[in-house]
This record gives sequence, structure tokens and C-alpha cells, in this order.
Amino acid sequence: EFMASPGFPKFMIDNLWILIAAGLVFIMHLGFASVESGLTQAKNSVNVIYKNVFILCMGILTYAFVGFQIMYPGDFNGFFGFGGFGIGFDASDPVGMLTSGYGMDMTIWSDFIFQAMFAATAATIVSGCVTGRVKLISFMLFGTILVSLIYPITGSWQWGGGWLSELGFYDFAGSTLVHAVGGFAGLACVLILGARKGKFDSGRVNIIPGHSIPLATVGVFLLWFGWFGFNGGSVLSADPATVSYVFVTTALAACAGAIASMLTTQVVFRSLDAPMALNGILAGLVGITAGADVISPLAAVAVGAIAGVLVVLAITFFDRMKVDDPVGAISVHGICGVWGTLAVGLFVPQYSFFTQLIGTLSVITFTFILSYALFSLIKFAIGVRVTDGVEAAGLDISEHGNSAYPYFAGIETEAAATADKS
Amino acid sequence: EFMASPGFPKFMIDNLWILIAAGLVFIMHLGFASVESGLTQAKNSVNVIYKNVFILCMGILTYAFVGFQIMYPGDFNGFFGFGGFGIGFDASDPVGMLTSGYGMDMTIWSDFIFQAMFAATAATIVSGCVTGRVKLISFMLFGTILVSLIYPITGSWQWGGGWLSELGFYDFAGSTLVHAVGGFAGLACVLILGARKGKFDSGRVNIIPGHSIPLATVGVFLLWFGWFGFNGGSVLSADPATVSYVFVTTALAACAGAIASMLTTQVVFRSLDAPMALNGILAGLVGITAGADVISPLAAVAVGAIAGVLVVLAITFFDRMKVDDPVGAISVHGICGVWGTLAVGLFVPQYSFFTQLIGTLSVITFTFILSYALFSLIKFAIGVRVTDGVEAAGLDISEHGNSAYPYFAGIETEAAATADKS
Amino acid sequence: EFMASPGFPKFMIDNLWILIAAGLVFIMHLGFASVESGLTQAKNSVNVIYKNVFILCMGILTYAFVGFQIMYPGDFNGFFGFGGFGIGFDASDPVGMLTSGYGMDMTIWSDFIFQAMFAATAATIVSGCVTGRVKLISFMLFGTILVSLIYPITGSWQWGGGWLSELGFYDFAGSTLVHAVGGFAGLACVLILGARKGKFDSGRVNIIPGHSIPLATVGVFLLWFGWFGFNGGSVLSADPATVSYVFVTTALAACAGAIASMLTTQVVFRSLDAPMALNGILAGLVGITAGADVISPLAAVAVGAIAGVLVVLAITFFDRMKVDDPVGAISVHGICGVWGTLAVGLFVPQYSFFTQLIGTLSVITFTFILSYALFSLIKFAIGVRVTDGVEAAGLDISEHGNSAYPYFAGIETEAAATADKS
Repeated sequence: EFMASPGFPKFMIDNLWILIAAGLVFIMHLGFASVESGLTQAKNSVNVIYKNVFILCMGILTYAFVGFQIMYPGDFNGFFGFGGFGIGFDASDPVGMLTSGYGMDMTIWSDFIFQAMFAATAATIVSGCVTGRVKLISFMLFGTILVSLIYPITGSWQWGGGWLSELGFYDFAGSTLVHAVGGFAGLACVLILGARKGKFDSGRVNIIPGHSIPLATVGVFLLWFGWFGFNGGSVLSADPATVSYVFVTTALAACAGAIASMLTTQVVFRSLDAPMALNGILAGLVGITAGADVISPLAAVAVGAIAGVLVVLAITFFDRMKVDDPVGAISVHGICGVWGTLAVGLFVPQYSFFTQLIGTLSVITFTFILSYALFSLIKFAIGVRVTDGVEAAGLDISEHGNSAYPYFAGIETEAAATADKS
Repeated sequence: EFMASPGFPKFMIDNLWILIAAGLVFIMHLGFASVESGLTQAKNSVNVIYKNVFILCMGILTYAFVGFQIMYPGDFNGFFGFGGFGIGFDASDPVGMLTSGYGMDMTIWSDFIFQAMFAATAATIVSGCVTGRVKLISFMLFGTILVSLIYPITGSWQWGGGWLSELGFYDFAGSTLVHAVGGFAGLACVLILGARKGKFDSGRVNIIPGHSIPLATVGVFLLWFGWFGFNGGSVLSADPATVSYVFVTTALAACAGAIASMLTTQVVFRSLDAPMALNGILAGLVGITAGADVISPLAAVAVGAIAGVLVVLAITFFDRMKVDDPVGAISVHGICGVWGTLAVGLFVPQYSFFTQLIGTLSVITFTFILSYALFSLIKFAIGVRVTDGVEAAGLDISEHGNSAYPYFAGIETEAAATADKS
Repeated sequence: EFMASPGFPKFMIDNLWILIAAGLVFIMHLGFASVESGLTQAKNSVNVIYKNVFILCMGILTYAFVGFQIMYPGDFNGFFGFGGFGIGFDASDPVGMLTSGYGMDMTIWSDFIFQAMFAATAATIVSGCVTGRVKLISFMLFGTILVSLIYPITGSWQWGGGWLSELGFYDFAGSTLVHAVGGFAGLACVLILGARKGKFDSGRVNIIPGHSIPLATVGVFLLWFGWFGFNGGSVLSADPATVSYVFVTTALAACAGAIASMLTTQVVFRSLDAPMALNGILAGLVGITAGADVISPLAAVAVGAIAGVLVVLAITFFDRMKVDDPVGAISVHGICGVWGTLAVGLFVPQYSFFTQLIGTLSVITFTFILSYALFSLIKFAIGVRVTDGVEAAGLDISEHGNSAYPYFAGIETEAAATADKS
């Protein structure tokens, strides 16, 4: 049977690569937890981690329960479909599910686990935006619905074969479908939530530094490491030419993003801020994600470099607009996600800039509106913001009874550290 | 010859996956070092790391020297056998050793390195249990003998083709053979060693918090990451259907463990303790390990969820029994390891609950008795516990002359931090 | 065409392994950033990270621009060649570039990305040596030229098919070509730069401890993890026998290095210093790198153990010589790199000790002289050392405006911490 056929070794390799890529995307969740925790205050760092653990685990469970079959409903109207509960394994036809009969170069289990690892990403991005003042239970509710419902709906428009894919829109591994969705859902939440106390006091922008740059660094490198699986696995096979090409464009864009962001920071702020350099790496990675398999290596450098400039300007812009995004996730994932999607239209002749624009705008508009409505509803029902006292004391003690570093003397409060830096 | 045969590509893929899985299991040792160090006091965190580095390195060396051929002795009496020193590479027959002639879908080198990465795990678990008061040299002795002798003996009963495998016992990747062995060896040591000073003072259970929740988080995520190799590699080939299935059950159990432990903590303690949520992930992973390839996805959720509840109750139980297990390893690996093994008998019709019970009981009883005897002997010969002065000052300075964080002012002593928390 | 040929599955597997190995070598850069940052003072830890991020990103970009074609120039005079700008992808012949027609078991993209990940390593090693007093811009200049010019030239002598490979020199994965190059370039810089203030005050060697042993541990384990790709990928195919063999010798040497370094530290200093044990792991890994595929497992243990002894003695020696190498990189990478290269001549009959000696001496001499000249030139032009005030305050604030841990009270200054330890 199939295992004796000449196509079986190729199927084995393709399937194995997708599983390894799923493992790599999994490690991105440690990357997110580390970078978001590292870039927030010590007193809120456990809370960030807790939210990320929750949303990863709840995200995978709900994706198994409903999300996977919302995102890949089979034939549907192009806007919304649902294939049924569970992941759709047909026990009466194991051969069809576990061989190339499934229609892909992998088993249904591999398909599911790879996609499930993607799913929690969008909500994890939001976690970074709302850190330091969001009520835990409110975030849990919002994140769960984002992962299990909103993300798979817009995902189905393109990857599920819906109206955007009909239109000729291209988003290889999700600059828009994953990153911009997370970024603009985060923006909606931040607008409802308001800024952290002290961030925009007395008309100026106060810097509230993250508590551990080494922790943030570990996070960014792990994200880059995992991105080889995020983009490389999105080839959906181990095709040597395409996967190796994607590795190269992904790495070049990340490098260009870092160098461009370093230069921009030096020119604009006359400093070589380390967190900004780290965000430059992420900006380049988010930017290349939409076109990693179709953009030329030289264009990958350009896409990454422009993303590296954009992220510095966007973070500055949102600060001026009094939009308080503690880890810069709206800029990194939202703005650079849109940029990467448009870049496909600019740099690759066979894709239309106009279609790319329509695609990314519809996805972020839909996400922003639904997120805004949902988070408003949660605000109305149970509130979304902790009390001033809890915020001042830090969410770690109030919400979890934990201190991230209980043996270290004199963890300073926000105000003191802010004063010290400004 | 073999390299030109149609079976060679399959052999290459299988072999490559086992090597990658060995790398993933290796990274679990960083996971253990991080989580155990993070969950202990700052003043003992270097000591934990040192013990783990030692036992990993000594474990691999002794496994090459004797352990591998105790665990896989070839034909033997079913209880104890020894195939000879070294790993058994027959230089006169390289083709037999490096092709499918070896009898597996991998070379003897791949077989050895994958198994060697498993071996040190059991002793590393013990390292967590005894932290904060064990004499370094005593642990080194105990751990070395556990890895090179006790672990491979019980391992041979099942994976070496011994009496338990004859009986129909099933332990896919080692809920019992690896994790429960570590957990119950640790229990034996803790009973001999006694609790840390101040843990059960004045009749109450004092919380001695870990020193870095971010470090513990890094550890737990790396353990989960590595577990895809631990369970996925235990398929012993890259068979697409089985490996992908194992990835799914492993992930679902981990997620269910985390969510269940979060809920249990909220219900029982009215708090959302972060280390307990992290332990919930590990509990789910330990639980699914015995049956990851035979348990249904829905049952995997159940097994993980029950493990997540169990781990919270077990930690509370051992605290009440005045068994001082600083990182909760007896509960995570011992109790959930037994649970996972029994679960195979409960959820999979072709395996007998009674056989699973016999299997896990014989392994943990044998391990517990030998560990108890061995550690008692070491206590008699050279002592197992540091002096009160060393314990109060922390083992890092006394045993290593190192401080984990020499530039951070005012690392508080145990008493102060405890008072602060209780 | 090629995809339907019987050789295609093997090509797919080989290519996939090289890509995964490239990912593993990438994670070594996080390892370097973590270990170097962890082993330096808190006040300089951001600076170390920043340098490593810069050199990784700039290194990959310049390697794409010129380095790859300096290192692999095609037919050349054996000393220096240049194949042209870019990585040499011939768009008119994609089949030749992306199949076995390229002449390797991988595509040109895989070949490039694997080699590019190696390239930044040498400069990253230097980053550790010069930490705590080097001017950022001077290091950036030096590192960029080292990566894009000096490293690929000596690399071409052997891996590019130059005069050393003609001579019969053997350096499997780069004990000399990567590690000793980094170590001796670092030595040149340190000699020009001088010691950190306070290191050799009043005629004694003062210990300036690293700021976070857990962070250094994370780094060392990630380096070991990545080394499976560094050595395993250097097979340049997924050949089951060779890759699995390399995994075994690599692991055994690392283990032996750790144990030997632990013993040596105990005998020489009567202490069990943790950073020295971690350096023992790295010493074993650097040592085995030149001969991982040709040295017997028993000899791998010997090579690693001797490296573990050597590294302790070399660090002590350089301290006595008043050569201030804050993280011990000259000893780990320079001395053990030379040792590993010579060991191939000692332990493997078909290689000549004399040729190995000539090879490693010519590479390190060339590197040392060019590095010394280049860094002297930079010193003359713009200076290489920060002012005493900047050094005392730490480079993080002065050069980046960042503090690694802004919420932790009382990060002690160098003098206080030194006094405390000595």
C-alpha cells in the first residue's frame, strides 16, 4: 500500500519537517513570554507570563475544539464556515487522513498541530499591549474568543480558500493574518483600556523601562529561531528549493531590520537603545512573513530595513498619540505586518498592490471592529481595568500572590524607576 | 549495497528524526536546570545548576560505559543482564551496526545517544527534590549510581525486553520508567534528608518561594519543547501517522494539565499561582508519556486534566505530610508518572489496568527501596546533609564559592523572605 | 526531471538536515549572547548583547554581500580569491543551483545560510574578550571586517579548497578555522586594549565575577544544543552513520570536558566553581570540533577531558600574564581550538601531527597579525577604549542609555563587588 509506494519517503520528509516546524513555532511562545515579560516592569512580569501560558494552552484546546474547522471549513461561502466540532479526523478512513490522500504532504495530525501553534500567536501579541493594567479574567475571556473565533474567521478568508484567496491576495505565512490581526486587536484593547498611570503624566511621554533586557533578548532570539519554522513550515512541504529560499529571505530581513533600526535610533534619538534594536529584528521578521517565498533576497533586505525604520517611527508615533503599548507590539506586529503585506504588491510583479491593500485593510478592519466591540462588551459586563491600587502595587502580587523575584531587595515602584530614567 | 537500496531514504529519515529527538531531549536538561534553579532560593540556585551539569555529563559517560548495555543486554533473564562494557559497537561488522541490519530504523550511535539523553533525566529529578540541604558529594555519588545502575535495571525490565514487557505492561516513553523512577528515588532521599530549616517551623507549612519565576518559565517551556522529542522520538522511527499523533496527544495533555491546574488552584487556594500553572503543564506531559501513541486525543485531554488536578493536590498533601520537596518534583514526576501509567489501563482497552498497576508498583517499589538503602549507606559513610550554618548561608557560597547574582544588593535570607510571604 | 528521480528523497533529507543544522547554529548566537552577558558585570551586560546582535546581523549581511564568495571563490590561487558580489546564485540556471547539480547535497541557499550562521561566530567570540572597556563603534568596525574579510580568507585556505586542504590539513567543523580564529583575534584586541580597571590592581589578580550564573548556564546549554548542528551539519549531508557518530563524539567530549574541569578546579583551587564547569563543557566541544567525524569515541573522551584541564590552566595562565579576558574566551576557543586541531594528528593515524601544527599555526598567526594591525589602526584613528568614567559607570548607561535591570536596587559597582569576593 502507500508505505511501499515510491512517494512514501517524500511524504515522510514533508510530514517530519512540518512537525519540526510546529515545534519551532511552539518555541516562539516562549519567545513571546520572555520578550513581553522582559520588556515590562518587574512587578507585572509574572502576570504577563501567566497570561501567555493561559492563552497558549486555551488556544490549542479551543483550536482543536472549534478553531481548526472554522479556519479550514472545506467548501464554504468564502466569509464564514464551520466544518464541525473536533479536528475532523475521520476514523472510518484512516488512510485518507494519514497519507497523501488527505490532500497535503502531511497527515491531518501534523496539519492540525502546525496550525494550532500559529493560532495562539495573535492573542499572545495582544497580551503584550495590555500589560500592566488589564484585569486578568477580562483578558482571558477576550483572548479565548480572539483565538477560537476571530482569528480563524479572517484566516479562512485566505488560507481556508475564502474570498481573499479568490481575489488573488497573497499572505504567505501571515504578516496580516497572524501578526496584523494581533497588532490591531491589541490596538482596539489599548484604546478602551487607556494608558498606564504615569505614562503620559504632565503632558509628556515618560519612559517606563522593561525590567530585564537579557530576558527580552532571550525572547527575541527564540522568536527568530522559531520563525524559521513559522515561515519555513508554511511551505507546507520540505521542498528543498523553497524552504531553503525562505530561510535565506527570513534571515536577511531580520538582519536588515536590526541594522536599520539601530541606525534610525542613532539618527533620531542619538542613542543606541537595545530594546529598539531587538524590536528591529522582530520588525524585519514580521515584514518578510507575507512574501518570504516570492520576494528576492535583495528585496528581502529592503523589506526588512524599511520595517526596521518603520518600527522606530511607529513606536514614537503611538507614544505621541498617547497610545500606551508597553512592549511596542502594535508597531512591531500591526504596522510592520501591514507593511510586509503591501511589500509583496510592491516588490513582486505578479501580485497587485491594490489587492494586497484591500486584503490587509479588510482583515485589520474586521479584526479591529470585532475586537473593539468584544472588549467593550467585556468592559461593560465585568470591567477591563484593575484598580489604581492594584496597578500601583503590580499585578503579580494582586492577581497571583507571586513575586517574580522575591529574594531581590528593593524592586522599585514604577514612579521611582520612571523618575530615574527621565 | 544498502545505500543504493529503496529502503535507504526511509532509514535516513528515521535515523535523522531520532538524532533531532535526541537533541530535543538534551534541551530538556536545560529545562530541568532552569525550572529547578528558578523554583529554589537565590542562595542555592548555583548549586542546583552545578548538580544538574554534573549528573548530565556523568550520566552520559557512565551510560556509555555500562548503562546502555545493562538496559539493553540482549537476551537475558528478564531481571538483570549486562551486555559488556562500552556501547556494544562491533567494529568487525559496521554494516550490521550502521544500517537496518542493527535491527532498528537507526544506527547504533543514534540508538545510544537518544537513550543516553533519557538516562540522566531520572537523577536530575532527584536533584530538584533534595535541593537546599543536600551535601554535594553525597548527591553526586547517589545520582551517578542511580543513572548508571538503578535506572537501567528497571528500564531493562520493559524496554530491554525483560519480565514486564513479557507481562504485557505498556509504558510508551517512560511515565513510570523515567519519571516515576526519578520521583520515587527523590522521595526516598527526602525522607532520609529531612526538610529544610524553617519549612515546617511551629507546626505550619511555610512557603519558601522560588527566586525567579521567569527562569522557571523558561525551564518549563523548554521541557515542553523537548518533550516533543522525548515522546515523538520514542516512536523510534519517523512514521508520519504515529509521530504526528504523538505530537497532538502530547500537546493536548500539556494544555489540559495547565488549565486544570489553574482552575484547581483557584478553587482550592483562591489564587492563580504561576508556579502551580507551570507544574500543571509538566503534570500533563508526564501523564501522557506512558500512552501518547495509544490514547485518543479526547482521552489525552482527560489524562492531562486529571494530572493537572492531581499535581496540586499532591503538592499540598506532601506539604501536610511534612515531606519537603522544594520544586514539587515528587508530585509532578512521581505521582503523575504513576497516574499516566495507570491511565493507559483505564483508557485503552487492549491494556490491562491490573498489569499497568503491577508494572508501575514493581518499578517504584524497587527504585524506592534501592534508593533508600543506597542513600542511607551514603548517610552512614559520609553524611548527606550540610551543616545548619551552610544551609543558612546558602549552598552556593559554601559549596562553590559562587553567588548566582553577585551584583544585586540584598539577596534576602530564607527567613526574611519566608516571613515576607507568609 | 530531478524531482522524479530516485535520488530526490535523499537530496530532500540532506538539504532539510542542513537547514535544521543552520537553525541550531543560529541558536548558538543566543548561547554566546547569554553566556557572555551572564559572565560580565550587570552594568555591561546590555552592551555585550548589543554587540552580539549587531555582529550577528551585520555578519550575515556582509557574508551575503562578499564573505561567502571570498570563502568559496571556486578555482583560485589557494591564498585569496573572490567569486564576485552576492552569493553567486545563477538565475539562468536554477536547476543547477537548486539540485544536486550544485555539486552538494543541498541547494545553494542551504549552503549559504549554513555557512552564514558560522561566519558571525568568530567575531562574537572577540566580543566576549573585549567586554567592559571597548568602544562600541571600534568593536563594530573591527568585528565587521573580521567577519567579512579575515575569517573567510583563512576559511578559504581549507574549506574553500586552498593551500591547507592541498597540504592534507584536517579541520572538520572548525576548531581552528572558527574557534581559534575568534580566540586569537580576541587575544590581539585584548593586548591592545589592556585590562579592565581594578582587575590587576596592587599586583594581584582580582576576581570580577559575572552577574548571572543562571543566564550563563542557559547560554552554555544552548551552545551545546546548537553544537549538534555545528558539528552534525558539517557532515554536509544526513548520512546516517556519520551524523550519528558525530553526535556521539560531540556529546562525549562535552561531558568529559565538564567532569575534567570540575576535577581540575577541585584539585587546583579546592573549590567547585560553576562558571569553570560551564567552561569545561565549551572546552570539550571546541576540542572535538576538528575531528568529530574521525576520532574514536574513547579518544573523544580523552580529547574532551584534556580540553577540560587545559581550559582551567589557560585561564589561570592568562590571569597571571595580566591578559584580561573577562569570559575566558581566549582559553576556551583559542587554546582548546588549537588543542583540538592537534589532537586529530595525535589520535587519527591518517593525519599528520606536523601538518595539523602547520595548519593551525598559520591560521592563528595570520589572524593574530591582521587583527593586531587592524585594531591598532582603529586605535590610532578613533581610539578603542572608553574613558575611565564610562568604564566605572558601566557601558550600558553610557553607550546605550539602558540599564539591564532598572528595577533592581543597588546594582553594586565593580569595586564593591570585587572587594566582596576577594
